[in-house]
Amino acid sequence: MSEFEFITRITKRLSRTANDRRDARGEVAEKASADFVDIGPGDDAAVIRAPGGRVVATSDLLIEGRHFRRDWSGPYDVGRKAAAQNLADVVAMGARPTALLIGFGVPAETEPGRAAPEWAQREWAEWLYDGLRDECDLVGAVVAGGDVVRAPMVILAVTALGDLAGRAPLLRSGARTGDVVAVRGRLGFAAAGVDLLSRGRDGPAILVEAHRRPRPPYAAGDEAARLGATALIDVSDGLVQDLGHIAAASGVRIDLDDAALPIAAELGAAGRTLVLTGGDDHAFAGTFPRETALPETWCAIGHVVAGEGVTIDGRPHGLTGWDHFRQ
Amino acid sequence: MSEFEFITRITKRLSRTANDRRDARGEVAEKASADFVDIGPGDDAAVIRAPGGRVVATSDLLIEGRHFRRDWSGPYDVGRKAAAQNLADVVAMGARPTALLIGFGVPAETEPGRAAPEWAQREWAEWLYDGLRDECDLVGAVVAGGDVVRAPMVILAVTALGDLAGRAPLLRSGARTGDVVAVRGRLGFAAAGVDLLSRGRDGPAILVEAHRRPRPPYAAGDEAARLGATALIDVSDGLVQDLGHIAAASGVRIDLDDAALPIAAELGAAGRTLVLTGGDDHAFAGTFPRETALPETWCAIGHVVAGEGVTIDGRPHGLTGWDHFRQ
Repeated sequence: MSEFEFITRITKRLSRTANDRRDARGEVAEKASADFVDIGPGDDAAVIRAPGGRVVATSDLLIEGRHFRRDWSGPYDVGRKAAAQNLADVVAMGARPTALLIGFGVPAETEPGRAAPEWAQREWAEWLYDGLRDECDLVGAVVAGGDVVRAPMVILAVTALGDLAGRAPLLRSGARTGDVVAVRGRLGFAAAGVDLLSRGRDGPAILVEAHRRPRPPYAAGDEAARLGATALIDVSDGLVQDLGHIAAASGVRIDLDDAALPIAAELGAAGRTLVLTGGDDHAFAGTFPRETALPETWCAIGHVVAGEGVTIDGRPHGLTGWDHFRQ
Repeated sequence: MSEFEFITRITKRLSRTANDRRDARGEVAEKASADFVDIGPGDDAAVIRAPGGRVVATSDLLIEGRHFRRDWSGPYDVGRKAAAQNLADVVAMGARPTALLIGFGVPAETEPGRAAPEWAQREWAEWLYDGLRDECDLVGAVVAGGDVVRAPMVILAVTALGDLAGRAPLLRSGARTGDVVAVRGRLGFAAAGVDLLSRGRDGPAILVEAHRRPRPPYAAGDEAARLGATALIDVSDGLVQDLGHIAAASGVRIDLDDAALPIAAELGAAGRTLVLTGGDDHAFAGTFPRETALPETWCAIGHVVAGEGVTIDGRPHGLTGWDHFRQ
């Protein structure tokens, strides 16, 4: 198969019908997307609308063996997750995701654990793009372009773009003393899932699936902006580490209330540590003016005080988060 | 070194002084850039201005051993080239490049052929970012964000963004029967350089350097738009192949005039083939209304006629271009 045949094949996965927009959970995206893409795949570059006059842009590099494993996750889930983690970064800026660009490194060898002919590898790629498309559909974004190259392992370079609709971005640097710290979304589930898979277990499903396919609560960005959030971050490297980024950028200390942490029963005995340090759930953590009436979707977990770093009940936490270079 | 120390170190390379804007050729960028970047590295995403209300976006994935070799190119040149090939795609849309996002896969092992301590690897990365910065300076763009991860080889995922300033994009699909086909920039030099390096030779310098550091004539995009170009493409996969993309997208045939091809004497006996099939010089090929008064910077090489594909003096050319899957 030539490069151009391959591109034609995966680009077809991105065409959309009402059925396409129904994802594996049976959910249907609220609105047709493609609204923001003037020129999609097939030219030197894509052209995407930025009606607010500014574009939010983020990119992640995902490498097989480090960020995902083909024996732990199928291609559809790899696609969902790769899109989700970048869409979450756009949402954490208070923006609406509009488009993804996908750089896809495609290994020539067949799938591990299978004596697969060429068609199986082709299907792997098609399922991947189905996953990318369906995750995008949840927020009304589309895959607008990218690049396909041969590589010794699966490599995904995902760029997500978004529109602020004229609003100011929600930065890490806006937290003020007196603000309430709150989180929306699951914490610790994905880390618990990785731990199970690394011990050869494939359940409980709620934890393993949380690793395979995070469910960022995408509405959190709009909601936080409406509520007047002073800072917002996508929790990807662990709660204390990511709140530490807000504390550092804002020149404040964040003090968590140990008793208020949302520790789900499913996480078991290690729940507290998983909630504080587990990454990849893509919850959103924000700071809000003290007087904010937070809806039930947000869980208040602490306050912004003078100082630096992150403490729990006023004391150092002694925990470390994710370091992409060490782990 | 932790991920965050590493990011701090490379981000420093992107800070700019008048001196920074003087590149290795002694050229100084016409104007300070950073104009377009509201929020640079350090938050969940970058925020880049798109005053024209649309953003041009393209991305390429470069993998060590396939797209560059560390024993053939130093880190500064790898950075220049990685930036250049993406900036050229933005220019080929008739847009002004504004920002790059860089996904950087960093191998833990030291440089090949050297018993290098950790500092040498750090320097490799710093030189790389110097190259990215200096190429961006030529067009007034900046590196606005990205991602750093451990990888088994150097991987660069480059996304380039650009602004159309309210103009329509220059697409591949606009060529019309009767148009003149013209090219601006060098052809065949980079391919000749790769051929020399693969035979263990390190000269002539003009050819080898053309592979290491292409010099796209970035002014070609603005110029083509002003001249009323009907289509424009970045010549990255070889002239006949890339003109074939214009022919296919426009539903026309492109007939090249063999005697008009710009075959530089430096290319030697294989000059004609190198000009017709060599990639990676990042010249620009466009189609222009017949009455266009082309400036000397553009070389007229053929015409748009009815039909399909690319011919030379009316006959099939029998040449093949670059396939990223085969080669």
